[in-house]
Amino acid sequence: MSHGPRGAVVALAGGVGAARLLRGLVRAVPAADVTAIVNTGDDAEFYGVHVSPDLDIVTYTLAGAVDTQKGYGLAGDSTTVVDQLGALGHEVWFRLGDRDLAHSLHRTLRLRAGAGLAEIADELRRHLGVATRILPMSEDPCPTLVELSGGHTVHFEEYLARDGAPDDVQGVDLSAAQRARPAPGVIEAIRSAGVIVVCPSNPVVSIGPVLAIPGIRDAIAASSAPVVAVSPIVGGAPIKGPADRLLRGIGVEVSAKGVAGLYTGLAGGFVFDERDAEQAAAIEDLGLRTRVVDTVMVDLAASTRLAEAALELADELR
Amino acid sequence: MSHGPRGAVVALAGGVGAARLLRGLVRAVPAADVTAIVNTGDDAEFYGVHVSPDLDIVTYTLAGAVDTQKGYGLAGDSTTVVDQLGALGHEVWFRLGDRDLAHSLHRTLRLRAGAGLAEIADELRRHLGVATRILPMSEDPCPTLVELSGGHTVHFEEYLARDGAPDDVQGVDLSAAQRARPAPGVIEAIRSAGVIVVCPSNPVVSIGPVLAIPGIRDAIAASSAPVVAVSPIVGGAPIKGPADRLLRGIGVEVSAKGVAGLYTGLAGGFVFDERDAEQAAAIEDLGLRTRVVDTVMVDLAASTRLAEAALELADELR
Repeated sequence: MSHGPRGAVVALAGGVGAARLLRGLVRAVPAADVTAIVNTGDDAEFYGVHVSPDLDIVTYTLAGAVDTQKGYGLAGDSTTVVDQLGALGHEVWFRLGDRDLAHSLHRTLRLRAGAGLAEIADELRRHLGVATRILPMSEDPCPTLVELSGGHTVHFEEYLARDGAPDDVQGVDLSAAQRARPAPGVIEAIRSAGVIVVCPSNPVVSIGPVLAIPGIRDAIAASSAPVVAVSPIVGGAPIKGPADRLLRGIGVEVSAKGVAGLYTGLAGGFVFDERDAEQAAAIEDLGLRTRVVDTVMVDLAASTRLAEAALELADELR
Repeated sequence: MSHGPRGAVVALAGGVGAARLLRGLVRAVPAADVTAIVNTGDDAEFYGVHVSPDLDIVTYTLAGAVDTQKGYGLAGDSTTVVDQLGALGHEVWFRLGDRDLAHSLHRTLRLRAGAGLAEIADELRRHLGVATRILPMSEDPCPTLVELSGGHTVHFEEYLARDGAPDDVQGVDLSAAQRARPAPGVIEAIRSAGVIVVCPSNPVVSIGPVLAIPGIRDAIAASSAPVVAVSPIVGGAPIKGPADRLLRGIGVEVSAKGVAGLYTGLAGGFVFDERDAEQAAAIEDLGLRTRVVDTVMVDLAASTRLAEAALELADELR
């Protein structure tokens, strides 16, 4: 495969924030140059089907098919099946739409037939017309567990979608990811990367699981490609999602600098928001080259500008 | 449980014809007096969910929720999930609607949780507000296989829904039903029946499997309740479905008399259509008391009249 001047771009990705940056990345460089390595720590079985929330968010967003209001799910999807299951007494806090359910059912049937999660992710992105390669971080089950006060531990989707992301996070259990193998293609993609981007996803429960998989962090460290991370924190708070509660839960300051601290030793560059500009010196003291921009991806143009800023910072690191 | 003057009514049932007679039966006697024992030889897994076509047709029809044009499925149901699966390359000749799929998904999840098919059928009929007890003939897998020319054997739903019921039937394989156990409640229902009705269903692939299950035919024979069968053949042809091809396939004449011959030794009475009135003497020669009426259930009133005719014939047999 031939690539643009920066070579292949590998992006470590979670859900909504990653998906929005990826939409910009695939405009800043040829879409086929980009490989997203996506968190599967949120994967779970709902209604008997294997749901991969982050893979689907990234795929649907790149396909231009995502429900932009919610950030996940398919635009205009109906919820006939979950509504009916709810009427039958099932817990339906995971509001999977009907077409979305069909994709998860496809995934389930293909898994049962012996296909791997990576192959299936590829089928789904091709079906939706996405030119960008989308890889699960692992094909092994690696559920992210959230430890709450009172010794109570829940799956991340229970924490987020069922319980509404309560504040009493005591820690995060990534032990399943720590025992998992990278999916086929993941290490190879990192090895051949010209640029590695850490998307503005939750560093604890989106990027954390990807980096917890044995072999992935080492492959990034061994790569000569510049690594740039983009902050998901703007003005001391996440744009979306419970990153504040999870950062506090693991004892990390909810700030661009707090996130930057998690990526030292991994990334050489850090892009963060102009609202946090006063943290620039402190972040540079961590050994990171910085770029301060507007990181709020209100539209496709903003996503593209942010992607270009990250790629330009990577160019400086070369 | 207290019953009307005729006692409990047990109906052996297949799909559309049975469902239409049952709609009349539950008006001719109190709905809670009726127990339908329903063929599960058509059951199969589609799209990873356990579908029970005849149980669903009977339940939906008694609930007033059936798609009356098709005779199966739920009125006004969408097909978002199967359409999307079709777009993903799955075979979708079994056109399961979305709400219908939710019911089958419920069945699948409940089976996986350890519930029995009878308990689940009861949950679904109660959910849909059906006062009539609906029992699967068996909780064991008992797929009906259709033997075609060239030694080709297919599941009944493949024969009917996928292949369009071709004419080259060589025989029917009920060996799974012959090894199955009656579902909980089936033998007890027959033992306590005041009347037993064999619905105007396909005698080969709807009633045949019910009677093939060890213990059911014996329980009927041991009962003192009158047994009345209703002919599914009108003027030498089935009202609906491939009964003609299946009767020919097992070497039985496609006529009211042909069907009556299959029920000698089981039924004492036989209700058949006025268009076949000339067969009355031949059918009586088989040892069956007969009643000749209009058996075509064009509406609820016709269903109720047919049910009343069957019950009156049963009264005469007492």
